[in-house]
Parts: sequence; structure tokens; C-alpha cells
Amino acid sequence: MFLRNCWYVAAWDHEVAGDFLTRRILGESILFYRTSGRNVVALADRCCHRRAPLSLGRREGDCVRCMYHGMKFDAQGFCVEIPGQDTIPRKARVHAYPVVERHRWIWIWMGDPELADPALIPDTHWVDAPEWKGTPPGYLHYQANYQLLSDNLLDFSHLAYVHLGTLGGSESYAQLKPEIEVLERGLRISRWLYDFAPPPFVAKLLPPGKVDRWNDYDYLIPGILIMSSGFAAAGSGAREGRREGAIEFRSCQAVTPETETTSHYFFSQPRNFANHDPITDRLLDQALRTAFHEDLTIIEAQQERWSERDDDEMVLITADAALVQYRRIFDRLLAGEQRATAQA
Amino acid sequence: MFLRNCWYVAAWDHEVAGDFLTRRILGESILFYRTSGRNVVALADRCCHRRAPLSLGRREGDCVRCMYHGMKFDAQGFCVEIPGQDTIPRKARVHAYPVVERHRWIWIWMGDPELADPALIPDTHWVDAPEWKGTPPGYLHYQANYQLLSDNLLDFSHLAYVHLGTLGGSESYAQLKPEIEVLERGLRISRWLYDFAPPPFVAKLLPPGKVDRWNDYDYLIPGILIMSSGFAAAGSGAREGRREGAIEFRSCQAVTPETETTSHYFFSQPRNFANHDPITDRLLDQALRTAFHEDLTIIEAQQERWSERDDDEMVLITADAALVQYRRIFDRLLAGEQRATAQA
Amino acid sequence: MFLRNCWYVAAWDHEVAGDFLTRRILGESILFYRTSGRNVVALADRCCHRRAPLSLGRREGDCVRCMYHGMKFDAQGFCVEIPGQDTIPRKARVHAYPVVERHRWIWIWMGDPELADPALIPDTHWVDAPEWKGTPPGYLHYQANYQLLSDNLLDFSHLAYVHLGTLGGSESYAQLKPEIEVLERGLRISRWLYDFAPPPFVAKLLPPGKVDRWNDYDYLIPGILIMSSGFAAAGSGAREGRREGAIEFRSCQAVTPETETTSHYFFSQPRNFANHDPITDRLLDQALRTAFHEDLTIIEAQQERWSERDDDEMVLITADAALVQYRRIFDRLLAGEQRATAQA
Repeated sequence: MFLRNCWYVAAWDHEVAGDFLTRRILGESILFYRTSGRNVVALADRCCHRRAPLSLGRREGDCVRCMYHGMKFDAQGFCVEIPGQDTIPRKARVHAYPVVERHRWIWIWMGDPELADPALIPDTHWVDAPEWKGTPPGYLHYQANYQLLSDNLLDFSHLAYVHLGTLGGSESYAQLKPEIEVLERGLRISRWLYDFAPPPFVAKLLPPGKVDRWNDYDYLIPGILIMSSGFAAAGSGAREGRREGAIEFRSCQAVTPETETTSHYFFSQPRNFANHDPITDRLLDQALRTAFHEDLTIIEAQQERWSERDDDEMVLITADAALVQYRRIFDRLLAGEQRATAQA
Repeated sequence: MFLRNCWYVAAWDHEVAGDFLTRRILGESILFYRTSGRNVVALADRCCHRRAPLSLGRREGDCVRCMYHGMKFDAQGFCVEIPGQDTIPRKARVHAYPVVERHRWIWIWMGDPELADPALIPDTHWVDAPEWKGTPPGYLHYQANYQLLSDNLLDFSHLAYVHLGTLGGSESYAQLKPEIEVLERGLRISRWLYDFAPPPFVAKLLPPGKVDRWNDYDYLIPGILIMSSGFAAAGSGAREGRREGAIEFRSCQAVTPETETTSHYFFSQPRNFANHDPITDRLLDQALRTAFHEDLTIIEAQQERWSERDDDEMVLITADAALVQYRRIFDRLLAGEQRATAQA
Repeated sequence: MFLRNCWYVAAWDHEVAGDFLTRRILGESILFYRTSGRNVVALADRCCHRRAPLSLGRREGDCVRCMYHGMKFDAQGFCVEIPGQDTIPRKARVHAYPVVERHRWIWIWMGDPELADPALIPDTHWVDAPEWKGTPPGYLHYQANYQLLSDNLLDFSHLAYVHLGTLGGSESYAQLKPEIEVLERGLRISRWLYDFAPPPFVAKLLPPGKVDRWNDYDYLIPGILIMSSGFAAAGSGAREGRREGAIEFRSCQAVTPETETTSHYFFSQPRNFANHDPITDRLLDQALRTAFHEDLTIIEAQQERWSERDDDEMVLITADAALVQYRRIFDRLLAGEQRATAQA
């Protein structure tokens, strides 16, 4: 079950370049390319005639010609030519998905195009803001249902175990109860730890001594994490806004279902310090990739167990608070879409 | 859904030699071998006792012994020996499929043996006629449903796109509407093009200049193409029968379902010119294999899209005329078989 | 369909050593490890919280901590710690399977722990008895349903065909009708052959001449074979108990379903002769492995045919007597379990 009326991250901008990109999203194969005006086009990658992939077709200007029987489609998906035939049936059209390119991500709307309001796209401007230095474009392919990734991102207590040697640094991280605020389409989650030994991935970047640490993030439908995190000298007043000497990140992460059991995961973690230092670049990029592979390992193993059986009861714990509240929002939106579909 | 009461091509003759050949047809594993009299035998490759494959068994004269518990079957599939047991149950029999060997192909009847009339086998005598020079025995395994192969062969407009650089040579090929005649068990399809640049695959074999070109073929249940095609100097009267200087082919092709999503494809393309010229042999063989791989690529990609989803409406175009009419014949025959099965 | 209230062989003792062992049994992934007291623990390898595998967790004394969110479980499967949470829900428990370690095998009870009576474990003491010399721990993984393995072991007529060149030696073996006695939870099967050329696997171990040969075994629910077999000079009175000069084996074999279509197969074949002779060791071990691969080949091929189709009628033969009687016992026990489950 997928939410459709929402913006998903479909790709990094550079992935849609001169050539065709084909990617499956919510189970649908989609063809991405750019017009001569550099606009991104997203068409169903199946000809409306006999379902051949348009991605095996040929670019003709801003159009694509299916190279099976030659039907030609424009960037809106309308068929504009059928070889040997003068009239074109009105139904001869492939679905054109609304897309928006913003801050290096290509966003796609999988539902009713009429409802595709770009104002619903969360702000991720840090990814290409000049004063923030991003990590290289991050992508992982998951052999797991997208909900398992969301569960992971909604409960950072796992930093204490999955990422003990990387992002977490101490099991005491799991003792902290986050503050959770319910938003219209997601949650605002906040964790502050005071007087805390810095975790391995940033220890080299900080002066010796204890730190105050924070992870403040929104987790938004359909699976977008936007986080302010950072480290400051213990007691220096970071929470009250005094951030001199602090190091800060603005992580932007996006989970997009590929199929029911596989997912796309896009990420970037801009920082506001040592912006021109390649050693810091490499150190943080490696730390992030190591940590995100730790997630991949446990989540894909978890998926294997779900595939064996998913009907046994699960025991809720306190740490699941955000997960439960997010699922409630998700289920409400999903039920709304299904009602709308049933009435249509 | 498969048609059963019809002849399918099961193998090239040389594939059934000294050893057992096992091949799946309509989802059924079948054991092929030759008797001492060189007759081809086709038995269900599953012992009637505990379903062990007879192909792991042992030849004993014209019989096969299952090497699990030793039951022995004759070439008609009757059990003739059960170790340690004097009487043989009447039901102790594996299905023996009617087979006919003709012009290098082994034909098999998958339905009611009582109905297996060899007169229903189409004429493919060109494949081993002395005055025609065949290509080497052609075979491709398809990861695609057989109907997608039939669709391909029923509409040659794809020559203009799939085979633009090989068999087609020009997109104008797709402008031509074929003549279609409905036969009892298939279609007769005819395409004549006049004053046309010869396509790449034969350009080297012809004197310079424009040609008239034809593709006249029957496409017969359950998926047999028999074609007269050729090229003659433009305006030389080939259609009226003046064929001096023309080069002609008699392509014989057969589609056989392996399973619902995989298929066998057998082909030969005899010609009536340069019959003893190895350079022409190689040139035509390579051209054919290149072109047939072009089909394979698009059809297997099409199958992938069908596997993702096959419930969305497809838009019919003019070029689908033969496909639609053939499907009507197919569906009528299939419905007839199902009625007969229901009554039995 | 699996029987649950019975003891299955889960592992050889040495497989559960310092590290975790994960093995799937009846479709369930199970984590095995040893406590500091060397007792074997078998826990469901899925955390009761979010189904992450405990096998990716961390040993803490005799406990295991799930390294996703840190829940800690003791050797009885009870959760003893939830990070950041004082009270532990009563349901916070993973299933602990009763296990018994006996004669080098780890036995596991997959059903209601209340019913797990170790007295139901068959006697396999020969496997580690000092006066018997076992083969190295045998294990084969099967791509086949466990019933196909049981069928194989219930009817030794296949020695005449599958093992003609190894264990069988002659097709006349299949002429012999075994004596079959019905036990409470299995069958007692006896085959005696007199004045018989010894089969290849033991020919080198015997003086020249004919032998009397026996295979007397119990085949017990859920798939345990315990056999006395041997060879004595023809007419020397082995059946009456005169065993001087005879060579004897006590084969212990166990079939355990991994999933519906895959199985575990454990085996050992202790002997009472040449107990300290490494050449005999090697000869017998190789003979056994060769022969058991012969079974593997035919049974996995049989499974392929069952997977193609399993609704066609099978012809019963005289040799199926044990198979039919065993299946009757199995089905009775299975029906009993299902009644009990339905009432619960």
C-alpha cells in the first residue's frame, strides 16, 4: 500500500542528464529525461499501445518515439504520431507525472496530477546553499519495504546500538526520550543530550571535552527527514542559540518505495564548518556511508524476517512513540486516498 | 492459457539424437528420444509412480526405465515392468505425445491424441528442399509469453523501427498497410513495396538501384510463420511472377510456449540464390541473428512491463489489424477446447 | 504442512559452539547458542519488538541483546531490559524452543513446550558409543520437500536402481518384499537377502564369496531412521544371531523440514569393525557420500517435477506399502494437531 498524492524524491538532478533514466517508483517504471529547455520529463515507461518500454525508444526533439511500432509522444505524454495512421485516438497517451526540480532533487507526484501542489515540497535548501557544504549525492538501494526505513528514521534510539561505533557513541543515547510534536503531515522530533562524550564520527572534528548534542528533525510524509543536528562545547548554550564554535549539520534524507519490498534512499548531510577542507569532506562522507550501511544491514535482515512471516504480534515499547504517531498520520492519509478512489 | 489441439514445433531433428532431450512445452517436461528405428518418441518426463524424471532413467532397447524404483516404459508410454510385482496396473502409463518429424522439425501434439491429424502440419518443405539453401538451424529462448512473439510476427510495421538498421531499412515500411486474408486457422498477410531502397541486410547481395520488395506470409495457429519474401529490380514485374534476377526467401518460423512466461522460437530462412556461397551464408545468417536479437530485446523488455502490470487498457492502432484478427481465431479455438474439456 | 509436536534434529552438536548458529526449521528462523554452562539455547531469531534478527545481536552473559533498539533477552526468551524504559511488558518475550542434546545431535521441539517429553527422542546412542565408530558428521541440504526424503527412506527398493553401483549392487534387491510392522509412531521394516554378491561399497571389506545381507530399521515420526544393517558369510546364521565375522552398521539419519520445499538431512553410519583403520574410514565415508548424492540428485529432480504440477494421480505399486502406512500415521498425527489447534 502506497500513498500516491504526495511528492517523492525520484532522483538526484545529475542522474537525469543527456540519457534516459528509468526508475521504478511505487512499482511503476518511469522514464526520465530533460527537454531542450532542461526541464525534467517523467513519463510512464510503457507505451500505451503494447506496453513496450519507451526507454528503448528514440529521442526526437522533446518527444520520445517508441521503437517498437513507432508511436511518438510529446513531453506531456500525448501521442503526436502513429505511423501509417492519420488520426490519433484520444486515449493514445502515456501518463506524464508532475515533476519539480529543487535543490538538486527531482520530486515526482505519483497521484492525481490535479492535486500536485509544489508548495507541499519540504524545504531542503541546505543541500545546495552556498554557505552549507553537502556530502556527495547519497543513494542506497534497499531490499526492504519503505516502512521499515521510516521506522528506523523515526526512532533514533537505534543510534545507541546500530551505530554504537559511528554516529551513536554511547548506549546512553537510548535512554533519552525525545520530544515529539505532531505536524499536519508528519512529526517534529527533538533530542538534546548534555555533557556527553562526542561520538566517533565527529570526535576528530571537535576540541577535546564533553559536548552538548542535538538532533532536531521533521519527519514528513511520505518519508522525508529534514534535520538540524550539531555539537557544541558542553554548557555553551547551544539550545538557547549560542552556536559560536558549534558544528552543525542539516541532513536531508528521502525514502521512496521502489516496490513493496524494495526502496530508494537518497541523502545529503550539509555542514556549516570546514567547508573547503577535503579531509573533513572525506571523513564525514565515509562516516555517513559506514553508518548508513549499518542501517542497511539491520533493515534488510529485518525485511527477511518479515518476509518469513508478518502476522505475529509485535510488542510496543516506549521508543515506538514517534513510529506509532507517524503511522497514524500515514494511515489516515491512506484511508483518505482510498475513500477518494472508491468514490471516483 | 494454451491451445492444446494443435501441432507445435518441439525441436530441430538433430537435437533428438543418441541422448535424451528434455524440453518443457506448455509447461510440461517432455522426454524425447529415438527408437532403434529412428522414430522420435515423446514421453511425459515424469514417472507415473512418484513423478521422478524419466530423463534420469536408462534406455533399454526402445524402452526407458525409471532409475528411481525401476518401472520400465515402452515407447508408447505403457509400463511393461514393475520390479518385484507380477501385475501391472492399467493406469501405469506415462503420456506419449504424438510426434511427426518433417523437414527437420519435430512436431508435437499436446492435446487429445485422437485428434492428432498430421495433415494439420503446415508445409515447410523449403527448410530441407535441395533447391533451397537454409540458414543454420535457428533457435532462441525467450523470457516472454508466446503471444508477445506472435504479436510481433503478425505486424511487420515493426521492421521500420526495431529493424531499421537491419531488415527494415526505412521508416516508410511502416506506412504500408498489408493485405490481410482470414484463413481457417490463421491469416494470410501480404506487403508489397515498390521502388524502394534495399534494406542493409540484402543491399550487398543486389545490384545497385531501387527494388520492389515483398513479404507474403501465412501466420498459422499455434504460431507458425511461413513466408515468401524477396527483392527484385524495381518495376521488373515480380508481383506478376517475373522473378528472373530476383532473390527470394522462404522463411519458416515457429513459436512454442515453454511456460506462461517463456517461449521457444525456431527459425530457418531458406533462399534460392548463391546456394553454394559461404560468404552469402555467413552474411545472411549474421543478419538474421542480429535482427532476431533486436526482436528478443524489445519483446523481453515488453514482457517485463507486462509482468509489472497487465490490467491497464492498451490503445489499438491500425497496424494491429492482423493481431486482432488472429487473436479472434485463437480465442475461438481456445473457447472450443475449453467447452470440450468441460463436457468431458 | 508440518507436524509440530515432535522432536526434530536441528544440528550437530559442534555446530552450536562459540558463535551464533541460525537455522530455519519448519520455516522459522531459530538462533542457537550455548550458555556459559554449555546448555544449548534455541530462541526465535526475530525480536518481539520489530522482528529484527537476534542473530545480529550481542551476547551478554547467557543473554542476547537485540542490536537494533537494545532489548535484551535471557536464555528462556524473556525480555530482561528495554533501554529507556522501566517496566517490561509481560508479552515481551521471544519463543524459547525446548532443546535436548543427545549423542551429538541437538533435538528441538517445534510445538507446544508443555508436551516436550524427552522420552520421545529415539535412541541413537551408536552415534557416539565407544564401541561403534561413526562416520564424520553427515549433512546435506535438500532443495526438496521433506516428504520426498521420507518416501525415499521408506522404500529401499531404490537401492537396486539409484544405488546400483554403490549401496545396492544388484537389481535383484528390488525383488525382495520387506517385512513391515506398524509401530506407535512409525514403522519397523526388515529386509534379509541370502546368498547374495556383496554390493560395491563393502566388497573390499569382506572376504571373497556370497553374503547374507540385512537392512532392519525403524522409520519414526517426524523422519528418523535408525537401522541395523550388515553382511555375513552366506549361510553363517546371522539372522539367528551368529554374527562372528559379520560386519555391522547402525545408521542414524534424520530429515528436518527447513521450508515447504527445502530440507535438512543429518546422518551418521557407525560400524563395529576396523574401528581404528583410517582407510576403512575413508572408504566408507566416501561410499556413503557418493550414495547420498545419488539420492539428492533424483529427489531434487523429483521435486522439480512436483513443482511443475502436483495434482496428477500417482500410480501405487507394491513397493509403496511402507510409504502408504507411514503416511497414514503421519496424517493421523497431523489431523490430531490440527484438531487441538482449532479447539485452542
